[in-house]
Amino acid sequence: MPELRQEPLTDTWVIIATERSKRPSDFASDKKDTGGGPDNCPFCLGNEHMTPPEILALRESGTEPNAPGWSIRVFENKFAALKSGGEARKGSEGPYENMDGVGAHEVIVESADHNRNLQDEKVEHVEEILRTWRARFQQLADDANIKYTQLFKNYGSVAGASLAHPHSQLIATPLVPKNISEEIKGMENYYERNGRCYFCDALDFEKREQERVVAENNTFLSFCPYAARFPFEIWIVPKAHQEHFHSMTDSELHDLAQILKESVGKLAGALNDPPYNLVVHTAPYNFDKNKRYHWHIEILPRLTKVAGFEWGTGYYINPTPPESAADFLRQVH
Amino acid sequence: MPELRQEPLTDTWVIIATERSKRPSDFASDKKDTGGGPDNCPFCLGNEHMTPPEILALRESGTEPNAPGWSIRVFENKFAALKSGGEARKGSEGPYENMDGVGAHEVIVESADHNRNLQDEKVEHVEEILRTWRARFQQLADDANIKYTQLFKNYGSVAGASLAHPHSQLIATPLVPKNISEEIKGMENYYERNGRCYFCDALDFEKREQERVVAENNTFLSFCPYAARFPFEIWIVPKAHQEHFHSMTDSELHDLAQILKESVGKLAGALNDPPYNLVVHTAPYNFDKNKRYHWHIEILPRLTKVAGFEWGTGYYINPTPPESAADFLRQVH
Repeated sequence: MPELRQEPLTDTWVIIATERSKRPSDFASDKKDTGGGPDNCPFCLGNEHMTPPEILALRESGTEPNAPGWSIRVFENKFAALKSGGEARKGSEGPYENMDGVGAHEVIVESADHNRNLQDEKVEHVEEILRTWRARFQQLADDANIKYTQLFKNYGSVAGASLAHPHSQLIATPLVPKNISEEIKGMENYYERNGRCYFCDALDFEKREQERVVAENNTFLSFCPYAARFPFEIWIVPKAHQEHFHSMTDSELHDLAQILKESVGKLAGALNDPPYNLVVHTAPYNFDKNKRYHWHIEILPRLTKVAGFEWGTGYYINPTPPESAADFLRQVH
Repeated sequence: MPELRQEPLTDTWVIIATERSKRPSDFASDKKDTGGGPDNCPFCLGNEHMTPPEILALRESGTEPNAPGWSIRVFENKFAALKSGGEARKGSEGPYENMDGVGAHEVIVESADHNRNLQDEKVEHVEEILRTWRARFQQLADDANIKYTQLFKNYGSVAGASLAHPHSQLIATPLVPKNISEEIKGMENYYERNGRCYFCDALDFEKREQERVVAENNTFLSFCPYAARFPFEIWIVPKAHQEHFHSMTDSELHDLAQILKESVGKLAGALNDPPYNLVVHTAPYNFDKNKRYHWHIEILPRLTKVAGFEWGTGYYINPTPPESAADFLRQVH
């Protein structure tokens, strides 16, 4: 069972991932092939036996689970950071706190094709990927131990992807993440001062100013945030005030697929297909009805190194003003 | 003048570094030579004209500034993220806040030798490096615009060093960094609950348990923290309760030089000289006498990738328990 440990000063929890346990010699030899073709790729068609059994898949009718015939496939991460089952018991050790590493860690293989990335897919297929994400969010809501589901996509080796085959992941946690708690508190403070949701205000401002807008459709705005931490950082935010990613309707899902494909496509076009992390920020399960949250997606290109200044301060240095970044991205077709 | 911008929800400030401004094409060609020898290295002896004028240097007597004869040399970063002079005026833009990018950004070249790293230096020279850090902390305290000095060392290209020649940097900020504010608040909360300083308690516990201890001398303890975010993360903490790095006495400075050299030496020995970020965490200038802080150094080896889960949640996954890491490090001589 993995263990969660708390840094008592800053409320930062760390998963001590025993399933992934590494000795010094493991780091020296930690050079995985992230390019290359489908040979030996556990996410490729025909290699289903190389992964844990599938939890969910989009399949041609009549095909068997854990065999070819799928176009999207979900299974537990082979080296799961958190494991389902049991209660999330809390403990302590001297001045420190810990907790059982209960939760879930799943892989969503987004395509049967080893080389077809999000921007290359048809909108309808991106829609199916998002529908799969939504289904997993909804299913995991039933587990009383799980307070939050973090969905993320590591694209490219620099961004932490250890396999090149297109995939995303989710880690469901027995705690509400620090970043989400901070955003909720920030939204509360903003609401108290202004009587409005921060994101609703920011969307109005960005639509009026236009200089940071990357793309727009009926349901979503895609823009480079004013205090972008990374060059070419992009946020995709629903125009309607909505707390949970997983409460999106089918028609909203279609519009998200369109703007997500367009946004990552522009990024790939402007910067020669750069590595990025994509993260969904959504309200926790069982969210207090009196509180406010506005879900959104953050796309964080990994073009600069996060280094001593950032680790020391929690602040960032961004060499590309978001206005210039958005201008470049708008020009990509 | 660089600009500071605030992410209103999370109190994260970002330096939009106009001096370092980059277009998409700059990222494609952003491959700097970080290995190699002293040819064209602006930090090497004889190339003093390639850097801004020196602010401070440890020199043989009779040698001229900005010429050979030095063994440690400090100057402004050629691409300074923050610039000195003027007032840190605050402004706003729609729902967002900003501030003039006032402060300082300096480089401390730690050796005249392109290839001699911290662990290879004599303790006496490491002591001179630390004395130089302390002198810059003390000098910058006189600037009324500066609230905090963040000292950091990026070691190795993966850790963000764009030049291989041994150096550290400081960025002095017109704000108290988010990470430091959080730690101060955490210390306050801990003190209220326990009537003791958190670090004083943790030191007692670590000395008793021994399993996470890496090294110890009269003045300092070096250990892998209980909730280490990174494999082989090491903290060096003064045993006496002390708020400010720059209030260290000469004899404490000597002991810090000894344990710092030993700690980075063990890291280099155990992991084949890995990249790391080193950060000093100290109390802000003009620290409220009624509050509590305990300064320390964090050494963060960059062996794992920070990816979507970390960016989404603010939590970390560490595949190496700190007890195992400390055990390996203790065995290196």
